[in-house]
Amino acid sequence: MIQQIAEIIKKGRTFLVTSHMRLDGDAVGSELALYEALRGLGKEVVVYNQDRTPQMYSFLPDAGIIVNRLGPLDGFDAVFVLDCSEIERAGEEASRIAGIRQIVNIDHHISNDHYGNLTLTDPEASSTGEMIFRLVEGMGLEITKDMAVNLYTAILTDTGAFRYSNTGPKTFAVAGRLLEKGADPAWIAQMVYETFPAVKIRLLSRALSTLEFDWQGRIAAVTVSKKMLDEAGAQWEHTEGFVEFPRSIEGVQVAAFFSEIGEGFYKVSLRSKGRFNIEQVAGKFGGGGHINAAACRMQGDFDTVKRKLFDAIKNGGR
Amino acid sequence: MIQQIAEIIKKGRTFLVTSHMRLDGDAVGSELALYEALRGLGKEVVVYNQDRTPQMYSFLPDAGIIVNRLGPLDGFDAVFVLDCSEIERAGEEASRIAGIRQIVNIDHHISNDHYGNLTLTDPEASSTGEMIFRLVEGMGLEITKDMAVNLYTAILTDTGAFRYSNTGPKTFAVAGRLLEKGADPAWIAQMVYETFPAVKIRLLSRALSTLEFDWQGRIAAVTVSKKMLDEAGAQWEHTEGFVEFPRSIEGVQVAAFFSEIGEGFYKVSLRSKGRFNIEQVAGKFGGGGHINAAACRMQGDFDTVKRKLFDAIKNGGR
Repeated sequence: MIQQIAEIIKKGRTFLVTSHMRLDGDAVGSELALYEALRGLGKEVVVYNQDRTPQMYSFLPDAGIIVNRLGPLDGFDAVFVLDCSEIERAGEEASRIAGIRQIVNIDHHISNDHYGNLTLTDPEASSTGEMIFRLVEGMGLEITKDMAVNLYTAILTDTGAFRYSNTGPKTFAVAGRLLEKGADPAWIAQMVYETFPAVKIRLLSRALSTLEFDWQGRIAAVTVSKKMLDEAGAQWEHTEGFVEFPRSIEGVQVAAFFSEIGEGFYKVSLRSKGRFNIEQVAGKFGGGGHINAAACRMQGDFDTVKRKLFDAIKNGGR
Repeated sequence: MIQQIAEIIKKGRTFLVTSHMRLDGDAVGSELALYEALRGLGKEVVVYNQDRTPQMYSFLPDAGIIVNRLGPLDGFDAVFVLDCSEIERAGEEASRIAGIRQIVNIDHHISNDHYGNLTLTDPEASSTGEMIFRLVEGMGLEITKDMAVNLYTAILTDTGAFRYSNTGPKTFAVAGRLLEKGADPAWIAQMVYETFPAVKIRLLSRALSTLEFDWQGRIAAVTVSKKMLDEAGAQWEHTEGFVEFPRSIEGVQVAAFFSEIGEGFYKVSLRSKGRFNIEQVAGKFGGGGHINAAACRMQGDFDTVKRKLFDAIKNGGR
């Protein structure tokens, strides 16, 4: 397959590279590394995403070349669709992109539906970044330092900093090679994970002071009220990741994070461990998500909201 | 050097293995992996530490064999002192341990003072665990699954989950080998980072409320007093990792975590980003560590202690 992709690259002159909506580190890092490889071969390359690059990935080499608008597509010899299990995940331009004469589908999701003329999928790969590394190496190209930074970031973020179960011996083998090629793991981790605004830490301190338990310690919850937010001078985006703190507690099976988004209106982020299906609980209140991560909105007096939610957790989820 | 160590192991029958006070994952993981290697050779082995094993490391294979009391030492053919830059770091039994006929000093700290009859130091190694891996392999022994779990935990914790600058290509090479030998990275990360006692989260909330800055935001510090500890019903081991919170703030170059271990006595954990050499700062107060992670003890009125430390940071480190 790599040889067929190499052939398309060799024959073509102008390429489009794209990925999914709601960009993550694997999407952006993979795109930019492939961009650099193609540019190194003297090709013309456009990297398009529907959504803007999240601020936390703006440090990535060449991040500035990504565009969020597409002109006419008939000049492109091929499009590389990265990290998308279905081409529709590319967003509002998906149907136009699907009209490009050659579609190369490169993805590590097990759910990939094999769209496109050429499909390179590997559900064993930690990330699409890991696959791009093998593609670039397999084509006999040099991994530059910029590619190494982009691909290391892709792998780092898609493995939750090597903490998710998709981390394997091959992941570390590739990560080690990327370090040899010049990626600085401490600097990249710093850029991705360690640039919190101080208000976030202050708000976290307040939020954790609300920690409470139910169901003999199997449910843990923390709350941020509008008042706490205002007093800390923070925004709702600063609460991202707060639900991980009650989740990290020994014996906790379900963690809840309540955001008081209005008087008597609550957004509830839910996390569960192991086989506890938290999506079913969120579903009872009109929400949704996955087995271990879901969310819903609830309304009413806070004590009543909590009691309803905790009762639903105790009665459901399995 | 590995051959000389192998010779000592071959000739001896009874060994002591020890490490430093205030145990961390590298100390415990390295000790237990070496214990397993020696036991595999049919040796008698005692693993002694002055301090009890922190709860978060009780999941480590064979953690239950560690003792905190030492009987007479004349029966030991050799002692392995792991991860200690000076033998005094072994604690109150250090002088008795120093009397054992063969002292093998295995450590990755650059400040190691080369005590002992045989010294194996490698400041390039991410951790003592990485060195024990090479020692065990270098002796031609099989890395068992238990050793892999212990050594992976040592490396994971001493690199801050592969986020510190001591993470290099060799670190990933060893980590990958340990996964091949049966270490489960997601399970280990969960055991180390996601099974906190509730008191830890309560104490964290209190600790973060003390967040303060100096040097136009380049220094951030948090403090836990004895009173806060008592009120939360917590132990000092529950403060492990707290220094990462001030470190994670945007613009912070140096993070300090003060533990008030006695009236007017402070243990200071220090972390820096990039090339800021925090070990030099700790060294000024009789402490030590690595370029990005160090510690020292200070004494006096708290405001004076802070001023002295912050002045040293502003004047040094590069």
